[in-house]
Amino acid sequence: SPQEMVKRNYIFDTIKVVFQRYGYLPIETPAMENLETLMGKYGDEGDKLIFKILNSGEYLEPLKSKMGYRVKKLLSNEIKVGDKITPEFAETFFSVEFYKNFIEDLQVNLVTKDISEKALKYDLTVPFARYVVQHQHEITFPFKRYQIQPVWRADRPQKGRYREFYQCDADVIGSNSLINEVELVQMIDDVFTQLKVPVLIKINNRKILSGIAEVIGEKDKIVTITVAIDKLDKIGADGVNKELQENNVSADAIKKLQPLIEFKGSTLEKLNFLKQLLAGSEIGLKGIQEIEYIFKTVSQISDLKSQIELDITLARGLNYYTGAIFEIKANVGTLTSSICGGGRYDDLTGVFGLPNMSGVGISFGADRIYDVLNELNLYPPSVAASTKLLFVSFGEKEQEYCLPLLAKVRKAGINSEIYPDAGAKMKKQMSYADDKKIPFVVIVGSDEMQSGSLTLKNMTSGEQEKIGIEKIIYKLKAN
Amino acid sequence: SPQEMVKRNYIFDTIKVVFQRYGYLPIETPAMENLETLMGKYGDEGDKLIFKILNSGEYLEPLKSKMGYRVKKLLSNEIKVGDKITPEFAETFFSVEFYKNFIEDLQVNLVTKDISEKALKYDLTVPFARYVVQHQHEITFPFKRYQIQPVWRADRPQKGRYREFYQCDADVIGSNSLINEVELVQMIDDVFTQLKVPVLIKINNRKILSGIAEVIGEKDKIVTITVAIDKLDKIGADGVNKELQENNVSADAIKKLQPLIEFKGSTLEKLNFLKQLLAGSEIGLKGIQEIEYIFKTVSQISDLKSQIELDITLARGLNYYTGAIFEIKANVGTLTSSICGGGRYDDLTGVFGLPNMSGVGISFGADRIYDVLNELNLYPPSVAASTKLLFVSFGEKEQEYCLPLLAKVRKAGINSEIYPDAGAKMKKQMSYADDKKIPFVVIVGSDEMQSGSLTLKNMTSGEQEKIGIEKIIYKLKAN
Repeated sequence: SPQEMVKRNYIFDTIKVVFQRYGYLPIETPAMENLETLMGKYGDEGDKLIFKILNSGEYLEPLKSKMGYRVKKLLSNEIKVGDKITPEFAETFFSVEFYKNFIEDLQVNLVTKDISEKALKYDLTVPFARYVVQHQHEITFPFKRYQIQPVWRADRPQKGRYREFYQCDADVIGSNSLINEVELVQMIDDVFTQLKVPVLIKINNRKILSGIAEVIGEKDKIVTITVAIDKLDKIGADGVNKELQENNVSADAIKKLQPLIEFKGSTLEKLNFLKQLLAGSEIGLKGIQEIEYIFKTVSQISDLKSQIELDITLARGLNYYTGAIFEIKANVGTLTSSICGGGRYDDLTGVFGLPNMSGVGISFGADRIYDVLNELNLYPPSVAASTKLLFVSFGEKEQEYCLPLLAKVRKAGINSEIYPDAGAKMKKQMSYADDKKIPFVVIVGSDEMQSGSLTLKNMTSGEQEKIGIEKIIYKLKAN
Repeated sequence: SPQEMVKRNYIFDTIKVVFQRYGYLPIETPAMENLETLMGKYGDEGDKLIFKILNSGEYLEPLKSKMGYRVKKLLSNEIKVGDKITPEFAETFFSVEFYKNFIEDLQVNLVTKDISEKALKYDLTVPFARYVVQHQHEITFPFKRYQIQPVWRADRPQKGRYREFYQCDADVIGSNSLINEVELVQMIDDVFTQLKVPVLIKINNRKILSGIAEVIGEKDKIVTITVAIDKLDKIGADGVNKELQENNVSADAIKKLQPLIEFKGSTLEKLNFLKQLLAGSEIGLKGIQEIEYIFKTVSQISDLKSQIELDITLARGLNYYTGAIFEIKANVGTLTSSICGGGRYDDLTGVFGLPNMSGVGISFGADRIYDVLNELNLYPPSVAASTKLLFVSFGEKEQEYCLPLLAKVRKAGINSEIYPDAGAKMKKQMSYADDKKIPFVVIVGSDEMQSGSLTLKNMTSGEQEKIGIEKIIYKLKAN
């Protein structure tokens, strides 16, 4: 609806301005990608949730003709119960191979290739990787791009989950510098400061998680361990330990992990604790160094409004992160789900043939931010109304009188309207202004036409005054 | 690409500002509509060009099980050539009905319902009509909405035709007032004036076409006649007459049509000619009256930059127009296709169960406008570059020195960046600025760090100057 759209555009515009402030440029990729570009990138569950598009054209013809051949055979050969089976008939009707192949055709060829070669994009990241590889010779690296577009997932519709929803991503690809991580933190802070939502920015580093897996002697089980630790908030320490045990993480390793899981303290205390714990892990120490750089540099160059903390249990589901990991939650209200997240990945484009391109990015969850702003009623009043002034008139002559005035108001850059149907009742015209939340109405009757002094009504206060058109323009421009 | 996006957004933003200036509010509808909402609305050709989306789930199971049953039968019953056919076997394998039904299933059930229930929207108009009917009790009428969204058509890709393209529509629904037509003309003029494209706005009225069909005695053939007349530009008078003949329009009627087809003159002369010709047709005279009102009112209230004319051969393909018809072409350059069009329709929502809702609207062809602006090089210079300033540094220390300055520049609202990789060669950093068309670069080495006076390079002129950060901010804000 218009009300929702205007609010959503306010969120998008705020994010866009910040993206551009930091040198990110917009791109868009088509809604449709080749099916094979998407398949296998989101796990088995993800593959099932991809919307596939039916090929146009007559993809059923080959199968129809196979069956049609049999109909012809039957019609041309009169055969009855009791007849002997001829070799020709057996070949046509009694070949197990034929039926098996036919099922196979239905299942494999028809579904995957003959029926569908295109699909709706499932996220912005994979199409972006495809785009970068395809345009690698035209792109200037480091490539800083943002993208605000819908994606589609064949989820069962439920509260807070939509089949079509917007993602707002900013990524820089082709740069290893930690400056990028620092700037992303600043951008997150800028966006939520402008939206007036106090947030908690949680940061972790995948290398620290790798270091932990290394020092507890379970280097190979890094994925299992991070997936389990990620659930700490939801299932508690006991739940995490149980999941680790079920996944054959050794009792010794689980024991070694406990101080870490139970550790409480400031970011500084955490870092000191980790330095001791990971003293023997090169990758772990690298992770700590990166985190320290980010925290130090952010604090030096900007006065963050957001709370920022190191959370060593933060892993985020996606396995492609290789460095920094971000997750952002609102620090107020009842909505606790993540409203922004991201991280560094070292090989996003490798699967499309362009290896060793390091990138880092963040994604804003526009729908969830929308819900948070709604709950906290944080939309500025100016977001509600687009039209500032409505001309209301008593009849055709009055309407005709209004039209040049309306043109003047518009020329001054003020969004304004006239109620189009000249014969409509005053009540109807006024309730149109009310419904559209138009803050000012100009009422024109014969008195006003004679004097040139118009009746301006403030729809919020109910006040009326007689006033010329130039003053109305001046007043509304100041508003 | 970013360059294309920035240009396209310039077009969208220009159009959006005008839409809102006239009181139109944004809505969006989902990319996917129910297939049955779309089918049958665009003619047979259109139906074929709708992208249909594969249902998720196991829609092939029923067909697979029908075939699987036969495989089972074959495997469980050893039968050979020469055996006699048993009744059971005949029933399973020799029923013509079975094969016919199977083909039918493939063809009808599977394709239309089992396989696909959703489709990508083909235009914005039909989903808008669906939206209005669905939300009729929440909407305040007259409902003025605009919509800028992609639509999809399974056309063969070719120059100037894309499978995914944007439509920019503004419609008002629930108002019969001709004020709406007048305002649409003003909006068209405002948009193209701001885009600096001189245009020709052609206007006609469907009622005049009906009147013509009536006075030449072929009232029932109105569609045939308008379709033929619409092609006058392309196929000439002879072509039109041939097509009319082929469609059984009487020789007498064709003869009566000639003066009309051949008529040249100003809008005023055309109107006078039409008044005589259509003197006997009530609907024709109504059309003339509407056209006169629009021309008169537009000229009274605004000083149009665009050329505007009555074109009685303008019909536009769509058969749902019932009143005014608009078509806009660029008056310069080589691109002659229509860049905007629209008209009044009296029963758009009737097919979804809400009859007698008159509406009128226009649609801007963003891709074609893009091509025109490209050809004429009409993008303002500010559209090219988003980032205004790049910090370039000789090493890590210099980079660290730059970061708080960069934060200051951004805080002042200036889009700016720092080259992220501190060790990168100067040449690489400068060519990054060149490629991104960044107009100013700040170069920071040890001299600059000591003096606090930075080197600002104007990338267009090549000039360099030593200048403090506050002055840089002042200078760029003025730019």
